[in-house]
Amino acid sequence: MLPEIKGLNEECGVFGVWGHVDASHITYYGLHSLQHRGQEGAGIVVSDREKLKIHKGMGLVNEVFNPDILDSLSGTGAIGHVRYTTAGNSDFINCQPLQFNSQTGSLALAHNGNLVNATALKRQLEHQGSIFQTTSDTEVIAHLIKRSGYPDIKDSVKNALTMVKGAYALAVLVEDFMMVALDPNGLRPLSIGKLGDAYVVSSETCAFDIVGAEFVREVHPGELITIDDEGLHIEEFSPSTKRTICSMEYVYFARPDSNVEEINVHAARKNLGKQLAIESPIEADVVTGVPDSSISAAIGYAEEAGIPYELGLIKNRYVGRTFIQPSQALREQGVKMKLSAVRGVVEGKRVVMIDDSIVRGTTARRIVKLLREAGAKEVHVRISSPPIINPCYYGIDTSTKGELIASTKSQQEICDEMGADSLSYLSVNGLMSGIGRPDTMENCGQCLACFTGQYPTDIYPETDHPYDKVLGGK
Amino acid sequence: MLPEIKGLNEECGVFGVWGHVDASHITYYGLHSLQHRGQEGAGIVVSDREKLKIHKGMGLVNEVFNPDILDSLSGTGAIGHVRYTTAGNSDFINCQPLQFNSQTGSLALAHNGNLVNATALKRQLEHQGSIFQTTSDTEVIAHLIKRSGYPDIKDSVKNALTMVKGAYALAVLVEDFMMVALDPNGLRPLSIGKLGDAYVVSSETCAFDIVGAEFVREVHPGELITIDDEGLHIEEFSPSTKRTICSMEYVYFARPDSNVEEINVHAARKNLGKQLAIESPIEADVVTGVPDSSISAAIGYAEEAGIPYELGLIKNRYVGRTFIQPSQALREQGVKMKLSAVRGVVEGKRVVMIDDSIVRGTTARRIVKLLREAGAKEVHVRISSPPIINPCYYGIDTSTKGELIASTKSQQEICDEMGADSLSYLSVNGLMSGIGRPDTMENCGQCLACFTGQYPTDIYPETDHPYDKVLGGK
Amino acid sequence: MLPEIKGLNEECGVFGVWGHVDASHITYYGLHSLQHRGQEGAGIVVSDREKLKIHKGMGLVNEVFNPDILDSLSGTGAIGHVRYTTAGNSDFINCQPLQFNSQTGSLALAHNGNLVNATALKRQLEHQGSIFQTTSDTEVIAHLIKRSGYPDIKDSVKNALTMVKGAYALAVLVEDFMMVALDPNGLRPLSIGKLGDAYVVSSETCAFDIVGAEFVREVHPGELITIDDEGLHIEEFSPSTKRTICSMEYVYFARPDSNVEEINVHAARKNLGKQLAIESPIEADVVTGVPDSSISAAIGYAEEAGIPYELGLIKNRYVGRTFIQPSQALREQGVKMKLSAVRGVVEGKRVVMIDDSIVRGTTARRIVKLLREAGAKEVHVRISSPPIINPCYYGIDTSTKGELIASTKSQQEICDEMGADSLSYLSVNGLMSGIGRPDTMENCGQCLACFTGQYPTDIYPETDHPYDKVLGGK
Amino acid sequence: MLPEIKGLNEECGVFGVWGHVDASHITYYGLHSLQHRGQEGAGIVVSDREKLKIHKGMGLVNEVFNPDILDSLSGTGAIGHVRYTTAGNSDFINCQPLQFNSQTGSLALAHNGNLVNATALKRQLEHQGSIFQTTSDTEVIAHLIKRSGYPDIKDSVKNALTMVKGAYALAVLVEDFMMVALDPNGLRPLSIGKLGDAYVVSSETCAFDIVGAEFVREVHPGELITIDDEGLHIEEFSPSTKRTICSMEYVYFARPDSNVEEINVHAARKNLGKQLAIESPIEADVVTGVPDSSISAAIGYAEEAGIPYELGLIKNRYVGRTFIQPSQALREQGVKMKLSAVRGVVEGKRVVMIDDSIVRGTTARRIVKLLREAGAKEVHVRISSPPIINPCYYGIDTSTKGELIASTKSQQEICDEMGADSLSYLSVNGLMSGIGRPDTMENCGQCLACFTGQYPTDIYPETDHPYDKVLGGK
Repeated sequence: MLPEIKGLNEECGVFGVWGHVDASHITYYGLHSLQHRGQEGAGIVVSDREKLKIHKGMGLVNEVFNPDILDSLSGTGAIGHVRYTTAGNSDFINCQPLQFNSQTGSLALAHNGNLVNATALKRQLEHQGSIFQTTSDTEVIAHLIKRSGYPDIKDSVKNALTMVKGAYALAVLVEDFMMVALDPNGLRPLSIGKLGDAYVVSSETCAFDIVGAEFVREVHPGELITIDDEGLHIEEFSPSTKRTICSMEYVYFARPDSNVEEINVHAARKNLGKQLAIESPIEADVVTGVPDSSISAAIGYAEEAGIPYELGLIKNRYVGRTFIQPSQALREQGVKMKLSAVRGVVEGKRVVMIDDSIVRGTTARRIVKLLREAGAKEVHVRISSPPIINPCYYGIDTSTKGELIASTKSQQEICDEMGADSLSYLSVNGLMSGIGRPDTMENCGQCLACFTGQYPTDIYPETDHPYDKVLGGK
Repeated sequence: MLPEIKGLNEECGVFGVWGHVDASHITYYGLHSLQHRGQEGAGIVVSDREKLKIHKGMGLVNEVFNPDILDSLSGTGAIGHVRYTTAGNSDFINCQPLQFNSQTGSLALAHNGNLVNATALKRQLEHQGSIFQTTSDTEVIAHLIKRSGYPDIKDSVKNALTMVKGAYALAVLVEDFMMVALDPNGLRPLSIGKLGDAYVVSSETCAFDIVGAEFVREVHPGELITIDDEGLHIEEFSPSTKRTICSMEYVYFARPDSNVEEINVHAARKNLGKQLAIESPIEADVVTGVPDSSISAAIGYAEEAGIPYELGLIKNRYVGRTFIQPSQALREQGVKMKLSAVRGVVEGKRVVMIDDSIVRGTTARRIVKLLREAGAKEVHVRISSPPIINPCYYGIDTSTKGELIASTKSQQEICDEMGADSLSYLSVNGLMSGIGRPDTMENCGQCLACFTGQYPTDIYPETDHPYDKVLGGK
Repeated sequence: MLPEIKGLNEECGVFGVWGHVDASHITYYGLHSLQHRGQEGAGIVVSDREKLKIHKGMGLVNEVFNPDILDSLSGTGAIGHVRYTTAGNSDFINCQPLQFNSQTGSLALAHNGNLVNATALKRQLEHQGSIFQTTSDTEVIAHLIKRSGYPDIKDSVKNALTMVKGAYALAVLVEDFMMVALDPNGLRPLSIGKLGDAYVVSSETCAFDIVGAEFVREVHPGELITIDDEGLHIEEFSPSTKRTICSMEYVYFARPDSNVEEINVHAARKNLGKQLAIESPIEADVVTGVPDSSISAAIGYAEEAGIPYELGLIKNRYVGRTFIQPSQALREQGVKMKLSAVRGVVEGKRVVMIDDSIVRGTTARRIVKLLREAGAKEVHVRISSPPIINPCYYGIDTSTKGELIASTKSQQEICDEMGADSLSYLSVNGLMSGIGRPDTMENCGQCLACFTGQYPTDIYPETDHPYDKVLGGK
Repeated sequence: MLPEIKGLNEECGVFGVWGHVDASHITYYGLHSLQHRGQEGAGIVVSDREKLKIHKGMGLVNEVFNPDILDSLSGTGAIGHVRYTTAGNSDFINCQPLQFNSQTGSLALAHNGNLVNATALKRQLEHQGSIFQTTSDTEVIAHLIKRSGYPDIKDSVKNALTMVKGAYALAVLVEDFMMVALDPNGLRPLSIGKLGDAYVVSSETCAFDIVGAEFVREVHPGELITIDDEGLHIEEFSPSTKRTICSMEYVYFARPDSNVEEINVHAARKNLGKQLAIESPIEADVVTGVPDSSISAAIGYAEEAGIPYELGLIKNRYVGRTFIQPSQALREQGVKMKLSAVRGVVEGKRVVMIDDSIVRGTTARRIVKLLREAGAKEVHVRISSPPIINPCYYGIDTSTKGELIASTKSQQEICDEMGADSLSYLSVNGLMSGIGRPDTMENCGQCLACFTGQYPTDIYPETDHPYDKVLGGK
């Protein structure tokens, strides 16, 4: 399912280009294809080789930019960012990229992920006299770069990256080149493509298709890659570790037309659905998926189970930020908002409803109710991922542990609470085999921490949960 | 496929409610669910029993209305409209509902469809001294009502409806009641539902699910139904004729969760896909549909053919009116806009691409190209409706005859032009049996004019093609 | 003083141009200089010789138009309008110009003034089958033109004008020429200028200075002037009567840089101030005027009285529609809004405060209070016009008679109520001699009805007070 | 004249309040009355005793704030800022107040003025690892405060202020109190008022009148005043020096209803006009002033010279940021923009035109031309300040020396160039005696550097001219 229905807040999207006369336009289209990774803010910084120019704002990519603004951002290199969370206009200050000016040159950063030792680093930096204008981890990285003080900015970036821990896919722009880096565990995706003579980088490969670029390679864990007029310069700032890419990218976060480490996301999801049909079969008349992110798994389940796949749930396409929520009274009278069940499809039927994950369980409960009201005889909920019982500290906002329904309730309790006839999750093994990463290889694992509690990095006592940070909580 | 990709302009959506304290809010949610029928303008008129109040504007429903505006539209009866076409802000004047004030009471009208004798009526009315501020047929109906001059407005409406010819689903609001009427051929859909003690009317039944109402009945051809505090009052203003509802409502225009004359639209489309698989089978690896309107047919084709259904084409969800179109140069470099092919799904595969219809053929050609560029080995185009060879005069903008590719080129020429490996259309009989209307019955036919040229009404020499009217052309 | 402080609503402004390649731009600048005549809505219709194109909207001229819109309004003839009153966006429908389309050609009208027999005409037209979409008098004139039915539109316009009574300065645009007309009493100002080979018309001559045009002549009462590529064609549609131009144009409504019937408005106001000093002298230390409209009179009073003129009251320039009004609590604590008294100027001084008129008296009371709080020892109020004791039916909204403080209270009561040390009005004779119209001439009178009750036209029992019409009241 | 006509950019305005439940609203009205000091950006930070909350943006005060935003800024202390310069939305980052967060508490700063050693301080701070996100001097002060590292923030502020040189009126907000400080030369005005139990601070006293507060005292040069729930705590962070307040505050920058060091600005300007009439008399028919800032001087000149004061020049009130500039072609045809001459007043007359200052001379030339075109027989320009021949480094943007017309041309050359019949400036002695500061006193001087070149502080070789900084130039 889509994040906004779950109340989930997700991570961000990063895009960059070096060596193209239309750098700002290319970045606009790239960010646009990453819009699902963050709808709350967007920004682009360009370099025209002499200076950096920035524009950013709250809202969707096509709300923040217009043709005049894009044209004013002339230059041949650019990095851009779409951002996930916020409350209020004043949160503008947290929009990325962040740009820093100094008498020796400018620096812009865009970052996807979450650091686990940001609090400690920030305390230390403040002690040394640094001041912070934002609440983002990105500013911590910038301070560390500045304080490294090497004559070559690349050395300063490498030095800074040895100090931060957690998840980061980072793009850095200076006047004369662009740098990208990935954390040593490779928790977030980041890929490089080629567009004529120019290079592009993107959180997801779908952006390459949109801008007409060809996929070149993924950025590997612990790499710092400099892109300038000569091409790519690859360095390692950290010893190679086993990659533990976030499983949730496959389960629901990435776009189905992206490949993550060369595995197509739609295909992976469809396999998860098939695997789920093998593990948890049920006699039923129709299979339906919660749009948009569970469609692929539902198709797979239906195909494997030999039950017709149908559009049993329809999403209203025009619900934007300005949509007026129905009052409590109207909601009780049955006014729906974003999703409705198709009576003509589910009435009198035994329905298998596929969802990609359950966090708090409120959305699933609401959808089961929608299906029942539309006349479904039976509703069997099948979840194409294992129960989420641990919080994520790497940028996926799956809430704090107390709010994760699977961490406090049994499967049967959850099933009863959502009013379903049956409920099954995919097993962790099913998840791994469904995605099909060649994980016998040394460097090709995946992060399963939210299911298993085995975090690939240290989690410090002071590690901020990203959601707390946003709210300014304790 | 969706209209905006085809450059098609479609008809409109009408919604109304009588007897609910939150009439404006209910209408807002109703119009919202009809948004696919018109994205260019929206309006609501309410009655508070003493006077009518109106608000309308250019844009989506949730751009035109905000909470303050909805609250200011207090009243217990309302009609609303979403509108399809436009050029420029000044076209505000054509937004509906239209409201007319007089010393004896006010009158508001909202109308879906297109009259075939509007030009002649207008000439006659102008000759008699009427002046026109809009270019819409609705104003013609209003003038006719006013000139009828009966003491009871219902008689004036009936009198006016005997003079207009063509397609219309009409909602009329006065201070004390609401009226709805359907043309004698029933070319457009219009249904009545019940929401507690209140009645609602809607172009499509999906709105009933959204606002929590229950379906009561369709408005039948030639009926004028008055809804007041006593309930429904049904009259016939025209002798009953065979209903010829527009086939295109099933093929691509209505929402899949609507029922049109008690046939679910998704189910009908899936059947069209199955029928198409029976008529035009092909050996292939994957079936994919052009989002959003061809998904159901693609599922049906895949199920019948036993070929896996996949998400081979992805639509970018965030393309709005303000989206910046790529320059010609960028488009030639491969920058995509709204739709992209999923390389991970189609690369090296034989693809069956299902589309619901072909008008000018430009979109299909572009999609075939997208699939080829993404590595499809073969592309077989299957269209879930027959060739469109005649223009529509009833509100579906399928362009003038010269622009209908199927009216000037052979099937093989079209196939070659779009670069497909094969192309097949559904037959007219396949269309009828796929939709499955019980058309042996006297009153249950369907309009097939755009395929067969057999128009259910007279077409006058002066009949304006609606598209011309919009452009103000000759 | 400015209308917005008094809660007065005023009449409108009309501008037109014929024969200039930049007709829409010229009209934009013209309307801009007439903005003080109406801040609530603006519109322009252009003719490109083949058709009319319109754009209008709620708000200030530079809110309604942008460069793209102006450019899209290509054409060599144009009329425009700024509008005074309204509540809510839905009042868009009343924005002018109004445009009417017919199969034989289009017609646009812009109108300043108020008809006194509109209600009767409307009833008659409705009886004959006309329908009304707006509440403006302009639509009545349009219906009358249409129903006149002469082959030559000029004859129809003349015919229509013989039926309407009241105040109107009217501009009419058709594809091939422009017409302007003034009511037989000449209640409203309307002038013609020349800009190269083009002609311009404007409610006030200040617009000629702004667009670089030269004054040619005023439109005389009862004239219909057609302006086409040949130049001016002057006809009389009504026998000549004595002109009775609205005195309030001189007193406070027109811009000081306009000439009304060749008398400069600033000079007239300064003379009113001098006359007032002669009629009502007082010993004082400083003279100050209520900005902006009473400044000229204050300068005149000071000069005649030999008392220094000072800026004792300052208006805050940036108070727009979106200004947040202080809460009652804050207002009681002394938070001011638009106007503040200058302590450094008035403290310990005997102040003569000049205002141009008193309607309800609330503003004057507030200003006296401001001056006292700023330390004024004495406050002597001098009004540069006679007491207003009768409502205006010609477009100046001086409220209904009950609300006119001078119609219900004695001068001493008013003085006490506003807390002034003394209060004097200008006499009617003083007003006439101050303005200095050569009224011995037959055709050069002025309307004094709001002071004297002698209306220059019949006032019908059903005459709508314009303010009622706006509110939709009885 | 007003800055926007001259292309001058000026300094800023600062406002603050401590101890009022409606702190954000009070600050809104205060900033509103300071709007003339900066129209490009506005911001407010409030303290609710637990944390700071901020909102700021580009535009006028009433564009940046709406009721919801003000209400969300709940708290009892607030500081606000209006800002003068900018180009483009991306300059948002330079809007003030700046807010800095740290684990030990937050800090917000708003600053009016310009530092002369900012470049050197910045270089040193960057060398120590500080990074800069803005180009404003305020961020330099913040870094210095942070690096001071005293346990008591007041000590850190004092320490920081000993390092900065130049002009500053500074407001600092932390959770529990507010601080204000003025540079040791007192180049900028800053006053304290009382509003019930609350204290307010403002760049100008006009804000006190607007919010209903009483003037208490000016902040003296070199003072740091802490305002908390106990009241005012006054400290000196610098030995007392002779005050050298900017003369331009009197000449044209401050509002006429403000008092600067207890001298009313209107009265001072009127005296400058009188002094000018004594120094440079001329035989003429009318005196007129360039609105708005030269009106007071014109009144004074007229009164002293015994020549009638008239409104010979009118400013169009509705020219906002969105006003569409006339094309070159239209300008050549005579289309005016913001200012027009009143033909009815100046035609055939010998006109004395009073302006407050001349920077580049382009505006004065344009106005002389306007007057001539409107028929003035003679135009005598009288400037109510001495020739500006030196740039300002303290925040008044009088351009670089090369662009100051009086630094490169003789008085006669300037007179010829602007097409005037005569030109006179006020003498420096005339300026001083006109303003009337009691400058025999030790601590009551004024800065005359732009006239005399005698700067009250050191000017470092690296001193940025503020205008350069804005443009990012070298």
